[in-house]
Amino acid sequence: MSTMLRAAIVGATGYSGAEVVRLLLMHPHVAVTSVVSSSNPGALLSDGFPHLKQIVTDRLDAVDADLLKEKADVVFLATPHGVSTELSPKLLEAGLKVIDISGDFRLKSGEVYEQWYKHKPADAAYLNKAVYGMSEVFGDEVRGANFISNPGCYPTATTLGLAPLAAKGWIDPKSIIVDAKSGVSGAGRGLSMTTHYSEINENFYAYKVNKHQHTPEIEQTLARLTGEEAAITFTTHLVPMTRGILATIYVNLKEQHSEEEIFELFRSYYAGRRFVRIRDKGKYPATKEVWGSNYCDIGLSLDPRTGRLTVLSAIDNVVKGAAGQAVQNLNLMMGWDEATGLAFSPVYP
Amino acid sequence: MSTMLRAAIVGATGYSGAEVVRLLLMHPHVAVTSVVSSSNPGALLSDGFPHLKQIVTDRLDAVDADLLKEKADVVFLATPHGVSTELSPKLLEAGLKVIDISGDFRLKSGEVYEQWYKHKPADAAYLNKAVYGMSEVFGDEVRGANFISNPGCYPTATTLGLAPLAAKGWIDPKSIIVDAKSGVSGAGRGLSMTTHYSEINENFYAYKVNKHQHTPEIEQTLARLTGEEAAITFTTHLVPMTRGILATIYVNLKEQHSEEEIFELFRSYYAGRRFVRIRDKGKYPATKEVWGSNYCDIGLSLDPRTGRLTVLSAIDNVVKGAAGQAVQNLNLMMGWDEATGLAFSPVYP
Amino acid sequence: MSTMLRAAIVGATGYSGAEVVRLLLMHPHVAVTSVVSSSNPGALLSDGFPHLKQIVTDRLDAVDADLLKEKADVVFLATPHGVSTELSPKLLEAGLKVIDISGDFRLKSGEVYEQWYKHKPADAAYLNKAVYGMSEVFGDEVRGANFISNPGCYPTATTLGLAPLAAKGWIDPKSIIVDAKSGVSGAGRGLSMTTHYSEINENFYAYKVNKHQHTPEIEQTLARLTGEEAAITFTTHLVPMTRGILATIYVNLKEQHSEEEIFELFRSYYAGRRFVRIRDKGKYPATKEVWGSNYCDIGLSLDPRTGRLTVLSAIDNVVKGAAGQAVQNLNLMMGWDEATGLAFSPVYP
Amino acid sequence: MSTMLRAAIVGATGYSGAEVVRLLLMHPHVAVTSVVSSSNPGALLSDGFPHLKQIVTDRLDAVDADLLKEKADVVFLATPHGVSTELSPKLLEAGLKVIDISGDFRLKSGEVYEQWYKHKPADAAYLNKAVYGMSEVFGDEVRGANFISNPGCYPTATTLGLAPLAAKGWIDPKSIIVDAKSGVSGAGRGLSMTTHYSEINENFYAYKVNKHQHTPEIEQTLARLTGEEAAITFTTHLVPMTRGILATIYVNLKEQHSEEEIFELFRSYYAGRRFVRIRDKGKYPATKEVWGSNYCDIGLSLDPRTGRLTVLSAIDNVVKGAAGQAVQNLNLMMGWDEATGLAFSPVYP
Repeated sequence: MSTMLRAAIVGATGYSGAEVVRLLLMHPHVAVTSVVSSSNPGALLSDGFPHLKQIVTDRLDAVDADLLKEKADVVFLATPHGVSTELSPKLLEAGLKVIDISGDFRLKSGEVYEQWYKHKPADAAYLNKAVYGMSEVFGDEVRGANFISNPGCYPTATTLGLAPLAAKGWIDPKSIIVDAKSGVSGAGRGLSMTTHYSEINENFYAYKVNKHQHTPEIEQTLARLTGEEAAITFTTHLVPMTRGILATIYVNLKEQHSEEEIFELFRSYYAGRRFVRIRDKGKYPATKEVWGSNYCDIGLSLDPRTGRLTVLSAIDNVVKGAAGQAVQNLNLMMGWDEATGLAFSPVYP
Repeated sequence: MSTMLRAAIVGATGYSGAEVVRLLLMHPHVAVTSVVSSSNPGALLSDGFPHLKQIVTDRLDAVDADLLKEKADVVFLATPHGVSTELSPKLLEAGLKVIDISGDFRLKSGEVYEQWYKHKPADAAYLNKAVYGMSEVFGDEVRGANFISNPGCYPTATTLGLAPLAAKGWIDPKSIIVDAKSGVSGAGRGLSMTTHYSEINENFYAYKVNKHQHTPEIEQTLARLTGEEAAITFTTHLVPMTRGILATIYVNLKEQHSEEEIFELFRSYYAGRRFVRIRDKGKYPATKEVWGSNYCDIGLSLDPRTGRLTVLSAIDNVVKGAAGQAVQNLNLMMGWDEATGLAFSPVYP
Repeated sequence: MSTMLRAAIVGATGYSGAEVVRLLLMHPHVAVTSVVSSSNPGALLSDGFPHLKQIVTDRLDAVDADLLKEKADVVFLATPHGVSTELSPKLLEAGLKVIDISGDFRLKSGEVYEQWYKHKPADAAYLNKAVYGMSEVFGDEVRGANFISNPGCYPTATTLGLAPLAAKGWIDPKSIIVDAKSGVSGAGRGLSMTTHYSEINENFYAYKVNKHQHTPEIEQTLARLTGEEAAITFTTHLVPMTRGILATIYVNLKEQHSEEEIFELFRSYYAGRRFVRIRDKGKYPATKEVWGSNYCDIGLSLDPRTGRLTVLSAIDNVVKGAAGQAVQNLNLMMGWDEATGLAFSPVYP
Repeated sequence: MSTMLRAAIVGATGYSGAEVVRLLLMHPHVAVTSVVSSSNPGALLSDGFPHLKQIVTDRLDAVDADLLKEKADVVFLATPHGVSTELSPKLLEAGLKVIDISGDFRLKSGEVYEQWYKHKPADAAYLNKAVYGMSEVFGDEVRGANFISNPGCYPTATTLGLAPLAAKGWIDPKSIIVDAKSGVSGAGRGLSMTTHYSEINENFYAYKVNKHQHTPEIEQTLARLTGEEAAITFTTHLVPMTRGILATIYVNLKEQHSEEEIFELFRSYYAGRRFVRIRDKGKYPATKEVWGSNYCDIGLSLDPRTGRLTVLSAIDNVVKGAAGQAVQNLNLMMGWDEATGLAFSPVYP
């Protein structure tokens, strides 16, 4: 490859944005040409993130569509709700590729967005244009696309745990219960009592019970896959650790299948997809075993006593749940191997 | 009270046993007269637990029924599976009171015990004699009893979250899914790869999926309360923290009830019971808010979208889930106020 | 005791203030009659601290000297710098007893205060009146006093580790290096990037190097004990845990002494003082072994290779380093046993 | 590079060994051709380390010098004390390159080794042959060498913090006090009460006070650099986190120097060395800011009140303190850029 693709990261002072920077530093075909932040333009990115000292020596650019058009071929948006709604259309019109890590373009229905996010939705035309980038499920649509709405962290873990069953029509959508647990980095870098160390350390609790804005995102994908609309139960918990999501998913099957058939279904659905690893029978994923990486590990257990299937799905929320899948989507958009720049191992312990 | 009740703790070198010691030090009517351990008799208890230095100056007694008869009026057993099976009958025959914190006498069916614990069950006569000491549910049976089988940690959190509904017949027992999470102290003081710091720190995963031995204990209690036998789905996870259990419980109601009716049911069921606190609508319990205490905090959410009820129940596994409920049961056995010696606040943060 | 002493806690919505509340709930001679906060008067204390739900049902009073005079006999101030400077004189003039947990009255020199705290110092007359309440060192002055300046957390751990040597004149004050480490609760409940979970979890670093405001407090006490003015080296670090301070202290002795003599010195200095525990030779304190308690554990090691003495001193910063020592001081002021209401064990694990 | 260097890792089932594997997977010129373990030959490496599932599909080879000669050009030894003593000479005689991550060849004096390690020392001829691989200090000797003794984790952090001063003769060696703190992974994967989660979580304490076997390793290097033999004070503490070492180092300067001169000394000493980053005045390193990487971050503070210099040095103990420096040494041995395969950013948060 003679020339490098030029990438800008808007929201580089947040955890997801900084992680895109970290990952792109390892990418052989991409150069980071602009790190952008509304909060502190002109400062060194490494002032706020000293781990990048002498590694990233760039100063922060202000959020400016014209500057982005000049400096970048592709723009990653790791921004609070509402920013991408305004910015992405401008960038797309200028011919840039856009990968939006925020939630602004995930829901096709502006009405549903408004109901769950309590924000004004994006323009309907662009909502329709945005390709929902669940790489292993909708990768075919991602290939060649210019505008990706990158999935949420919880929906990534959940959907990868349900997609084979949903696509095959094996599950009763109304039976789905997702009990999800996330490390604290999912709450971002903004200060809050919830993320105050002494409050969350040595603590475990559920939050936004029956109210989490990722609920309709999961339901939308399941409806696409199953052809049925259904409300699911989705509960989120905070785990006293920095990174990682585990989704424990309970489903009733429409018809009886053996555990072996279910394993076979998952293995064939994800055949050739490097980043999804199906654990052997009796083995279950652990968030630490995907730490810092783009892997999603899945375990399965069919209980003969109840007939209920339990699916366990683990990801690193900052990587596969945000920045990593964004880079994976870039690879797919560009026609590169999906693992380009991402083919490193989790860090353990 | 002119004389103190003399208490022995067998298994004082484990976490639950040491916690009984800590709690009884604050009890106005009980004196610890023997700390017992099979592992290191003759040593100071405080050699293995330096936090007790100059507080408990006793040396460990060997496990010896005759010595216990001589030194104690009541014996707490915080022992591995199988020890109580042998020891409790001897102590009971000698007229001592026994509070068994182990799992040996929790299941009335020896067959079910053997199936889940992979151990030889206790004598059926004593299985029948043992009163299952879920204080807020079966407190009437505990009063005046001499032999208490103290509930498991997970069953305590789960049962307190379901008892009002089960007793009233409002839930479909087949619909019950319990997604439970525990701090690492629940695994005890014995060394294992699971409890090795670098393996579990910054990690979250499920274990014994569809296989945990607390499953039949929960089912047995629910069957007593509902009059229906039913298999439940019960999943356990390890949280990177020392103490605390949160059970997230999903149930379908047999008939429709408003959220207000459900709150009212819980409040009236636990009226007058100091250690169960029902959170207000929209508020949910956190394990840290019961840390070090005998409280069980419960939150409730009825989802209008699915009709499903979510119950959240939090305890300190070492206190309400073991040593604290054991002391509470002693209080009930002796006719004392159930909070005697236990009326202290959680430690926060 | 026929009547209870009435206590008010100003700053009850902070960690130290809430801990005073927790401790006084266990005190046989004290009743909490007012919980005070500038931030949210009228709200339930338990709204901000749900662990106190149904335990403390009081609403927060505004900061109002007149109200305090009416409702309390003793006032604990757990307030930010500057509040006590104004409030304490008023309370003292009205005949109340005051225990100030803030730093406002610790330094006798207003000039030194201003230099390190960057705040206006308190009135010199009151600075002179305030008794510095290092219970085991200056307990004789605390007995019968009405105005106590409660020591800082780091100075408590450090001073208890040095007092026997300093009082005896065995150490070269210029040689003293204190390498101190604290849990995050020491930073209080106010939000900051430093206490943001994802930033401090799995992290360890030094802060305020050669600049910490507790430095002159330690020096002032050492000067009183040794009769020599000397600057010390004092470094503070943040440990990814909630509670606990360990001070590792390095000193050169003026003359040679055997390790046995040093142990003997410490044991005799603290003879009869329940809350200081000297570890045996070769054993060292751990913060977790004093967790939630008023103990200070001390270990000693004289290195024959260098002739240097290492003292290790561990406390719970919220208890012995703040609220616990405040209650201990109240006990001394009132002529009660210093352990009244504090004679409980650390919570372990 | 047409052919890949073939590397074997002995002790691949430990944390340092597994980290060598992780790092070499990213190395462009090295292929892992054998993972070796005495504990479980024939098993998949990924059975014990599921994070490597589908990434490393090799089975474990037994420890067998003949097999190593056949399969590898370079052997990394990440083994318990004593293994390398026997194995390394055989491998060297067969013409292989050896990088020994264990402590067996770090001390030139067998007598000193025996005194601190309580093990039989290695053969003196090989002790002399081993090049002590502190990359930034003795890199010239590493270039072209065949046998590297890789430094210990604590000595790496400490020596990098002292080398510029020692080499220049600015410090009084007798004044050196190193207060070091390490994450728990430094204790390895072997089970012990020390590394039992509930014991070390939320805990902080010193261990092996004045007895740590890394003491003479640091002293040996300082003696080489300063030309003076001197005993130092070296204290090690365990931090409740997985990775990271911070060494807080106190020294007296022989003559007065300004803080600016000291900064300049450090910057010039490490000029061109990518992995040592000197923080700006008033900024201090944090272990999390080097997490997962080969960086060593250094902060400096000269206290005008005492004249004492404080040096803060942070590394990831598993990378720069073990596996990373081993790969860096391989790069130097082979004449490659020292950052080959190591030029990735720390992972944050």
